[in-house]
Amino acid sequence: MGIPAVDVRPLSREKLPMATYAVIMAGGSGTRFWPASRMARPKQLLPLGGDTRSLLAATVGRLEPVVPRDKVLVVTAAALADATHRELPGVPIENILAEPAPRNTAPCIGWATRVILARDPDATIVVLPSDHYVANEPEFCKTVERAIAAAKTRAIATIGILPTRPDTGFGYIELGAPIAGGDALEVARFVEKPDLARAGEFVASGRFLWNSGTFFFRAAAMNAAISAHLPDLARGLDEMDRDASALGRVFPTLPSISIDYGVMEKVSREPGNVAVVPGDFGWSDVGSWESAWELGKKDAHGNAVPEGAVMVDAKNNLARVTGKKVVALVGVDDLVVVETEDAILVMPRNRAQDVRAVVDALKSAGRTDKV
Amino acid sequence: MGIPAVDVRPLSREKLPMATYAVIMAGGSGTRFWPASRMARPKQLLPLGGDTRSLLAATVGRLEPVVPRDKVLVVTAAALADATHRELPGVPIENILAEPAPRNTAPCIGWATRVILARDPDATIVVLPSDHYVANEPEFCKTVERAIAAAKTRAIATIGILPTRPDTGFGYIELGAPIAGGDALEVARFVEKPDLARAGEFVASGRFLWNSGTFFFRAAAMNAAISAHLPDLARGLDEMDRDASALGRVFPTLPSISIDYGVMEKVSREPGNVAVVPGDFGWSDVGSWESAWELGKKDAHGNAVPEGAVMVDAKNNLARVTGKKVVALVGVDDLVVVETEDAILVMPRNRAQDVRAVVDALKSAGRTDKV
Repeated sequence: MGIPAVDVRPLSREKLPMATYAVIMAGGSGTRFWPASRMARPKQLLPLGGDTRSLLAATVGRLEPVVPRDKVLVVTAAALADATHRELPGVPIENILAEPAPRNTAPCIGWATRVILARDPDATIVVLPSDHYVANEPEFCKTVERAIAAAKTRAIATIGILPTRPDTGFGYIELGAPIAGGDALEVARFVEKPDLARAGEFVASGRFLWNSGTFFFRAAAMNAAISAHLPDLARGLDEMDRDASALGRVFPTLPSISIDYGVMEKVSREPGNVAVVPGDFGWSDVGSWESAWELGKKDAHGNAVPEGAVMVDAKNNLARVTGKKVVALVGVDDLVVVETEDAILVMPRNRAQDVRAVVDALKSAGRTDKV
Repeated sequence: MGIPAVDVRPLSREKLPMATYAVIMAGGSGTRFWPASRMARPKQLLPLGGDTRSLLAATVGRLEPVVPRDKVLVVTAAALADATHRELPGVPIENILAEPAPRNTAPCIGWATRVILARDPDATIVVLPSDHYVANEPEFCKTVERAIAAAKTRAIATIGILPTRPDTGFGYIELGAPIAGGDALEVARFVEKPDLARAGEFVASGRFLWNSGTFFFRAAAMNAAISAHLPDLARGLDEMDRDASALGRVFPTLPSISIDYGVMEKVSREPGNVAVVPGDFGWSDVGSWESAWELGKKDAHGNAVPEGAVMVDAKNNLARVTGKKVVALVGVDDLVVVETEDAILVMPRNRAQDVRAVVDALKSAGRTDKV
């Protein structure tokens, strides 16, 4: 089944009250969940959040009280469009935006913003990654609503996660002054991933939040920010607006730049433009197999393993296998065991970052069918 | 394909010079190689000896310089007869003896002896387990020939393995006086599996060998020994001799007793009856996954793993998987990883004996399809 060209004709205004749309960024193709994640089956399509839903399906599902499925757009790679749509019953096929080439988040968000603008010039947009986990979904929705409210009076709002440890894997947001009459604060500055010492200072200070990679804005405001700070991107989007058939030709030529560098940083240099809403809803970016173990449902000995697994003197292991295979672990602790149709990985949980070395070795050996 | 009833009619004597036959005992159904070994695929049908041959195929292959395949009989369970025959090209179908029920080694050897006697009353018989490993095959054949020679003048001969460690998993044979004009010695006595202290004394003394479970005898001598020491067994075998169709009815009623207890021990009480030939040919009874690792072909870091496996900071592991699966081990040492069509086992090599606990757990849970 092919994905039809996106229909960018404006709909009748009568049908369109000012509405909130969501843009789910689902173009990822990480290697940190090898062998489960592959080029054709990236992280967001895997059930890594402790239940049977894929991270993508869970993302759309938890947002539903705020943004109904017909207002959810998902931007993904052309090769993943079918699989992405199958994962999301209720999301119209015309809301699946298939990028002809990966161009980072600024073109992704810029394009989706234009598509939504054409449907509703007054739209407010929630941009979320497709591959994060949230434990407390009602609290998440409340926070999203606060961020939407903040976006009414600012160029862009974002959610900052209350840090629970000095993690060096995230960017940080330094808090400015509280914004009167709301739940948001000014953003003093965005800080790149720090070293452990600085991360410790950040967390101890109470003035820093984790950058969650979420964005909240009026469509018109983002469009204006892109025109101001990324004129090359704006010109390409103009061309795509004029000619629906230009996507395949123009999109691959758009500047490959992140929304953080291309827009957020520049917009935030001028005080009063960017607001941050603190979030505390049991968040995880599901960064590795270690996270999958943390989020997984565990037995009395800390084993997150399939039903019917046989554990003999085994603690705190994660196991995932195909079909109804029996997993038997004897005398092992803190292991990750992942079996797929064509690969098996065994490693200690605390070596989860080293999965990359396996993928690199397979690539070096020319075994592209395995990555 | 069914196994025809065994043809016990005597062949023409002209075609039958005094010959050496082999009886391979292949009725085992152990659990120590779960999940690779199953009821329908026991240890002897698995390639556990470091090459692609099953232990059974290797057993018949290494004996070939001494006993050609048309003189090899294999006694196995009815359910395993087809799989056993497929494993042994060149062994005639009428040489596959399918036991209607497992009755331990005395009925197995007694029956095979009768079948061979009917073909050649002067036959000498070599009885071997089907699931052992031998590194030095020429030396093994020399030792077998010495044992065959010893059997010409004794009731029964056996091979005793030169012990390399105080193993408590084997029976021991105490050596008596050397037998003049041969390579054999008298057997002073058979000793059951000792505790570690006694095993240490045995090995240090230089007067003890491991019981290898091999037997060498003239068919007529074994037949006489069974008549003398196991008259119930002899009567049952008589009935099967008289009526080829009696196998299914009579065999399950034969006394379930080992040849060691039922014949060897009794025969050896009278001095001069049993001879032992020392063997030193790199022997293993392939008792557990630990043995499979010891016998396996290893990389520079001691990993016995499939071709194309990706080892990252991993040492001394054993891995076996189905098909062409990539095995990736990261940061793990001394593990056993075994994947089959319906199960995965992960355990430290030194816990190999605890596979039994997994099989017991599966049986207790009623999951007989997995054992």
